Amino acid sequence: MKKIAIIMGSASDLPVAEEAVKALSEFAVPYEVMVCSAHRTPEDLRTFAAGAREAGFGALICIAGLAAHLAGAAAALTTLPVVGVPAASGSLQGLDALLSTAQMPPGIPVATVAIGAGRNAALLCVQMLAIEDASLAMQLASARERMASGIRDKNREVASALNQKEVQG
Amino acid sequence: MKKIAIIMGSASDLPVAEEAVKALSEFAVPYEVMVCSAHRTPEDLRTFAAGAREAGFGALICIAGLAAHLAGAAAALTTLPVVGVPAASGSLQGLDALLSTAQMPPGIPVATVAIGAGRNAALLCVQMLAIEDASLAMQLASARERMASGIRDKNREVASALNQKEVQG
Amino acid sequence: MKKIAIIMGSASDLPVAEEAVKALSEFAVPYEVMVCSAHRTPEDLRTFAAGAREAGFGALICIAGLAAHLAGAAAALTTLPVVGVPAASGSLQGLDALLSTAQMPPGIPVATVAIGAGRNAALLCVQMLAIEDASLAMQLASARERMASGIRDKNREVASALNQKEVQG
Amino acid sequence: MKKIAIIMGSASDLPVAEEAVKALSEFAVPYEVMVCSAHRTPEDLRTFAAGAREAGFGALICIAGLAAHLAGAAAALTTLPVVGVPAASGSLQGLDALLSTAQMPPGIPVATVAIGAGRNAALLCVQMLAIEDASLAMQLASARERMASGIRDKNREVASALNQKEVQG
Amino acid sequence: MKKIAIIMGSASDLPVAEEAVKALSEFAVPYEVMVCSAHRTPEDLRTFAAGAREAGFGALICIAGLAAHLAGAAAALTTLPVVGVPAASGSLQGLDALLSTAQMPPGIPVATVAIGAGRNAALLCVQMLAIEDASLAMQLASARERMASGIRDKNREVASALNQKEVQG
Amino acid sequence: MKKIAIIMGSASDLPVAEEAVKALSEFAVPYEVMVCSAHRTPEDLRTFAAGAREAGFGALICIAGLAAHLAGAAAALTTLPVVGVPAASGSLQGLDALLSTAQMPPGIPVATVAIGAGRNAALLCVQMLAIEDASLAMQLASARERMASGIRDKNREVASALNQKEVQG
Amino acid sequence: MKKIAIIMGSASDLPVAEEAVKALSEFAVPYEVMVCSAHRTPEDLRTFAAGAREAGFGALICIAGLAAHLAGAAAALTTLPVVGVPAASGSLQGLDALLSTAQMPPGIPVATVAIGAGRNAALLCVQMLAIEDASLAMQLASARERMASGIRDKNREVASALNQKEVQG
Amino acid sequence: MKKIAIIMGSASDLPVAEEAVKALSEFAVPYEVMVCSAHRTPEDLRTFAAGAREAGFGALICIAGLAAHLAGAAAALTTLPVVGVPAASGSLQGLDALLSTAQMPPGIPVATVAIGAGRNAALLCVQMLAIEDASLAMQLASARERMASGIRDKNREVASALNQKEVQG
Repeated sequence: MKKIAIIMGSASDLPVAEEAVKALSEFAVPYEVMVCSAHRTPEDLRTFAAGAREAGFGALICIAGLAAHLAGAAAALTTLPVVGVPAASGSLQGLDALLSTAQMPPGIPVATVAIGAGRNAALLCVQMLAIEDASLAMQLASARERMASGIRDKNREVASALNQKEVQG
Repeated sequence: MKKIAIIMGSASDLPVAEEAVKALSEFAVPYEVMVCSAHRTPEDLRTFAAGAREAGFGALICIAGLAAHLAGAAAALTTLPVVGVPAASGSLQGLDALLSTAQMPPGIPVATVAIGAGRNAALLCVQMLAIEDASLAMQLASARERMASGIRDKNREVASALNQKEVQG
Repeated sequence: MKKIAIIMGSASDLPVAEEAVKALSEFAVPYEVMVCSAHRTPEDLRTFAAGAREAGFGALICIAGLAAHLAGAAAALTTLPVVGVPAASGSLQGLDALLSTAQMPPGIPVATVAIGAGRNAALLCVQMLAIEDASLAMQLASARERMASGIRDKNREVASALNQKEVQG
Repeated sequence: MKKIAIIMGSASDLPVAEEAVKALSEFAVPYEVMVCSAHRTPEDLRTFAAGAREAGFGALICIAGLAAHLAGAAAALTTLPVVGVPAASGSLQGLDALLSTAQMPPGIPVATVAIGAGRNAALLCVQMLAIEDASLAMQLASARERMASGIRDKNREVASALNQKEVQG
Repeated sequence: MKKIAIIMGSASDLPVAEEAVKALSEFAVPYEVMVCSAHRTPEDLRTFAAGAREAGFGALICIAGLAAHLAGAAAALTTLPVVGVPAASGSLQGLDALLSTAQMPPGIPVATVAIGAGRNAALLCVQMLAIEDASLAMQLASARERMASGIRDKNREVASALNQKEVQG
Repeated sequence: MKKIAIIMGSASDLPVAEEAVKALSEFAVPYEVMVCSAHRTPEDLRTFAAGAREAGFGALICIAGLAAHLAGAAAALTTLPVVGVPAASGSLQGLDALLSTAQMPPGIPVATVAIGAGRNAALLCVQMLAIEDASLAMQLASARERMASGIRDKNREVASALNQKEVQG
Repeated sequence: MKKIAIIMGSASDLPVAEEAVKALSEFAVPYEVMVCSAHRTPEDLRTFAAGAREAGFGALICIAGLAAHLAGAAAALTTLPVVGVPAASGSLQGLDALLSTAQMPPGIPVATVAIGAGRNAALLCVQMLAIEDASLAMQLASARERMASGIRDKNREVASALNQKEVQG
Repeated sequence: MKKIAIIMGSASDLPVAEEAVKALSEFAVPYEVMVCSAHRTPEDLRTFAAGAREAGFGALICIAGLAAHLAGAAAALTTLPVVGVPAASGSLQGLDALLSTAQMPPGIPVATVAIGAGRNAALLCVQMLAIEDASLAMQLASARERMASGIRDKNREVASALNQKEVQG
C-alpha cells in the first residue's frame, strides 16, 4: 500500500500531526512523519516532494500556520495529491493559514481541510487510497458506522441528562 | 477508468463547472455533470451520493456558493473523496462559501480548493486517480511542463514589452 | 401545544442547548433534546426532520459550529421553521458557523440567531407559537417586563457603586 | 389570516422588499409594505411595532443595511417574531448589516436570514404561520416540490449543454 | 458646565464605563452613569435621550457590545452628540459592535471610538465641551503634556532595561 | 461661530468632502476645505492642526482611505475634536480605513463615522457646536423633522407602487 | 549600482509591475522584469533567487495574488531583501494575498507593502539602496518635495472648486 | 556600521522589541531602543525621524498596535527604510495594526512584517545593510544554515517520538 507523508512546517504543529498519525493507524495505512519548512529548509522539501512518488508515497499531508506555504510549495513539486492543513498558530488564529493554503492559483491544486484538522486530512488520504481498494473502502464505511454509533450514544446520554435536570429544576 | 461527478448546487455555477469539464477532458478522464442542490433536492443528492461508488465514480466535485453545504452533504453520504469548490456568488464574494466548505467537523473531510477553482478541482481528481495510474501520472507531469512553458513564454513577452515601453517612455 | 426540538450537532454544544432548555421551561413549552449530526448521522437527521411535523413539533432549534450545516440540512427536509444557532467552536470563534448558518440560498430559509444564543433561539420559538396563542403572548410580555426590571435594578446598583467609588477616589 | 409587515429602513431596499412581496403573494398571505427607519423615524417605528399584534400582524420583516438596527429596534417593541434581512448597501457589502442584525443580546431575538434574502424572509414567515395551518403547510410542501422540479429541469438542460460542448470541442 | 451621560447597555460593560468615569473626574466634568438597554428597556432610553438636552447634558457616551444599537438608538432621539463605544463582548471580540456602532446611515451620526475605549470616549466629550471653554482647553493641553511625559519616562526605563539585558545576555 | 476644517488626505476624496460641505452649508456653519496628507505633507498638517484652535476652528473633519492616519495625526496635534471619515478607496473597500481611524490608543480620541460618511461627519460637528447654541440646536431638530418627512413621503410612494404592482401582477 | 528584480507571479500582474518600473526609472535605478511563478515554475524561481546576489541584484520585488507564496518562496532562497506586493486578484480582492505575503514565520522576513502597491515597492528598494548612497538619498528627498508640491497644488485647485460650487449652489 | 532604531509605540510592546534586540545582537548590528508614540509624543517622533539619517541610523523598526500609525508617521519624516511591526494588542488581535501598517498610500512605503514579528523586522534590517556588505551577507547565510539545522534536529526528534508513540499506542 502507498505511504502517506505527514509534513509539519514547525515542530509546534505536532498535536495536529498526531491526530493524522492516529487516524492513519486506525486504517493500518503506512506513513512517515517529518518536520520540513517551505521557508527554512526549502531544499529538503524540494528533494522530498520531487521524489515522493518514486519513494512509494501516495499522498502528502502538509501542516503549517501563518503564511502557510508548505502545502502549495510541495504541490508545486509533485503530481501526487497534497492535503493542506492550516494550523491555528499566531494571533489571527488560522485565518491567514486557511487563505494561504486554499487560495492556490490555477494549475497547482491543494486539497485544503479545516483549520487544525489533522484527523480529516488523514481520512481524506485514506479515501483517496480507497478509490481503487475495496477493502479499505469497506473499512471506511465501518468507521462511519462506529462514528454514527458514537453520536447516538451521546444522544442518549445528553437527552437523559437534560431530562433529569428538567425534573430537578 | 473511474468517472468524476461534477455537481453544481445551482445552474449559475456553470462557468466553474465548465472549467472542471475542460480540465478533465484534457486528461480524457470520464465525467458526468449535474445540477443538484443540498437544500432544494436533498433526496436526489442522497440517492446519487450514496450510490456513486457503485456507479463507477472515483471522486465528486461539488460547486456551491453562499452557505455552501453541497460538498459536506455529499461527503456525509459517501466514502469517496469529495472536492469542494466555493463559488463567489452573493455579496460576500465567496468568503461564506469557503468557510462553509472547508471548516468540516472531524470524521467527514472535504478537499477544499480555491474560490471558483473549477480547474484545480478537476486536476486534484486527476491526481487522485493517478496515485495508482502511472500513465495518468505521466500526463500530469507533461501538463505541468506545458504550463511552465506557458509561463516562460509570458516571461519573454512581458519582459520585452516592458523594455520597449521603457525605451519609449 | 407544539413541541420544540433542540438538536445539537455535537455533544460539545450542550451549554448552548441548556440555555434553550431553560428558556422553554420558563414558558412551559414542551421540548425534546437530541444530538444529531448533519454529517455524521445524516440518516437520523433525515428521519427526524422529515417526520417532525407529524410528530407534533412546531419548530426546530439546530445548534452547530464550524461549517455548520445542521440547520440548513434540517430546513431542507421540513417546512417547519428552523432556528439556527451558530456555535463558537473552533479557532474562528463562530464566524464560520454564522456564515454557514445564515447565508442560505433562496427557497430554504433558516432563522439565524447570534453566535451561542441558545436562549434567544428558544424565545424565538416561543414567539412563533405565540402568534396565535394569546396566553403565551401575554407570558412573553410579562417576561419582557421582568427583564426590564432586572436592567433597572442593575442600573440602581451600578450607579450607586460608581458614585461611591467616585466619592472615595 | 395574520398579515405580514414588510418594513424597509430606506427606499433603496425596495428590490429586496419586492422579493418578499412576490413570495407572500404566491401563498396568498396578506401583507403591508412600508418605509420606516429605526434612526430617522424612530417614533413611527415605535408606534407601528408596539401596535402590530393588535393590528392583526403575525410577523414583521425588517430590511436594512449598514448598522442595521431596524429589526432589533422592532423586536424590542413587540413580542411578534421579527425577521431581519441584512441589505448589501455600502462598501462592506452587507457584512456590517449581517452582524448588526444577527448578534442580538439575550432576551430580544431576531430571526436573521441571508444578506439580501427577501424571498427567504417571506418564506420563513409563511412557515411560521403554517405551524398551526395545515393547508398552508401543504402549499409549502408543494412549493418545495416545484422548486425541486425546477432544479431537475436545470439539471437536464445543463447536462445536455455540457455534453454538446464536449462533442464539439 | 454641561453633564455627560455614561450609558451602558449591560452591567457587564462596567469596566469600560469606569474608564470613562475616571477620565471625566480628572477634568472635573460632571456626569451621570446608568444602565439602559436599547433592546431591553427601549422606553427608558427613549425617555432619557429625548430629554437629555433639557436635563443639562452636553453629550452622551453609549457603551454596548454585540449588535450594539445603543449609541444609534440614542442618537436617533436627541441632537446632542452621541459617542459610541463598541464593547468586546461575545465571541467576535467587538468587531460586530464596532460595525454596528460606526456604520450609521446618513442623517444620524454616532462618534465612534475604539473597541473598549471608555477613556477616549470621555476625552472626546471633554474636547467637545472645550470648543468654547478656554480653561478646559488648557486643562486638555496640560493632560497631553503629562501623557507625553509619561511616555518619555517609559522611554528612559525601557531603554535602560534593554541595554542592561543586552550587557548581561 | 467656530469654523469647521474639512481635510482630505487625497483629492480623490472630493465626493466625500462635498457631502460635508453641503451639510455644513445647510446650517450656515462656516468651513474651510483643504487637501493635506498625513504622509505626504506632514509638516503642513502639523502647522495647520497645531494652530487650528487659534485660527478660529471648532472641529476638524479628516477624510482618508487605506492606512488612514490623517484623523489620528491631526488629533495628536490639537485638542479640538477630530472627526474621522474612513474613505472606501483601495481594494479592501474601506475596512482598512475604518480600523485605522477608529482603533486609536488611549489619550488621543478620534470621532469615527461610517465609511464615506461625509454628511454625518458634518452633522456631528454641527451637533458639537450646538451643545451651547440653542438656535443651532433648533435648526438640527427641524432638519430631523424634514428628514422624517422625507422618509414618510417615500413610505407613501413605495407602498402605493408595491400595491399597484400587486394588482397588476 | 545594484539592480532590482521585479518578479510577477502571473502576467496579469503587469499593471502593478509597470508602476514599479516607472518609479525605478525616475531614480535611474536599473531593473529586470520577469514572470516567474512560485508554483508553476518553482525551479526557475529557485535558480534565479539563489543566484540573484551574484548576478548583481540588490533586492527583489515579488508581485502575486491569491495564496501569494512568491515573495516568501524567493525570500527562502536568498538573503537579499525581498519586497512582497499582494495583488488584488480573485474574489477576496487581495486580503488573501496580503496575509499570505505578510504573515511569514520567524527567520525568513518579507517586506510587505500595500495591496497593489507597485510604486511603493520600488520606492522601498530605492530607499534600501540609498542607505549608503548619499546622492540617491538626496534624490529621494527631492521626490518627496515634488510630491508635497503636488498635494499643495491639488489643495489650491480643490479649495477654489469647492468655494465656487458653494457660491453657485 | 549604520545603527538600527527600534521604536515602540507603547512600553507594552516590549516583548516584540526584545526579539528585535536579540536578532540584531546576533549579527553585532548596533541599535537604539526607544518608546515614542505617533499620537502621544508626535514632536519627539518628528525630531527623531527627521534626524535619523544624520544620526547614523540605517533603518527604523516601528512596533505599534491598534490603529498603528507609528511606522507610517516615521516613514513620512525620513527617506530611510522603515520596517513596521503590527502588534497584537487589543481585541482584534493585530488585524487592525496589520492593515494600519501595510496599507500605506503611494509615495511613502512601509516594509511591513508579520504581526508581532520583532525578529523578522530585525533580520530584514540586517538584510538591507548586507546589500553592500559581503561579510554581513555571509553571516546571514550562516544563520540560515543554523536555522535549517535546527529544523532538521526537530525533524529527527519528532519523527522518533511519533514512531515510539505508534509502537506503544
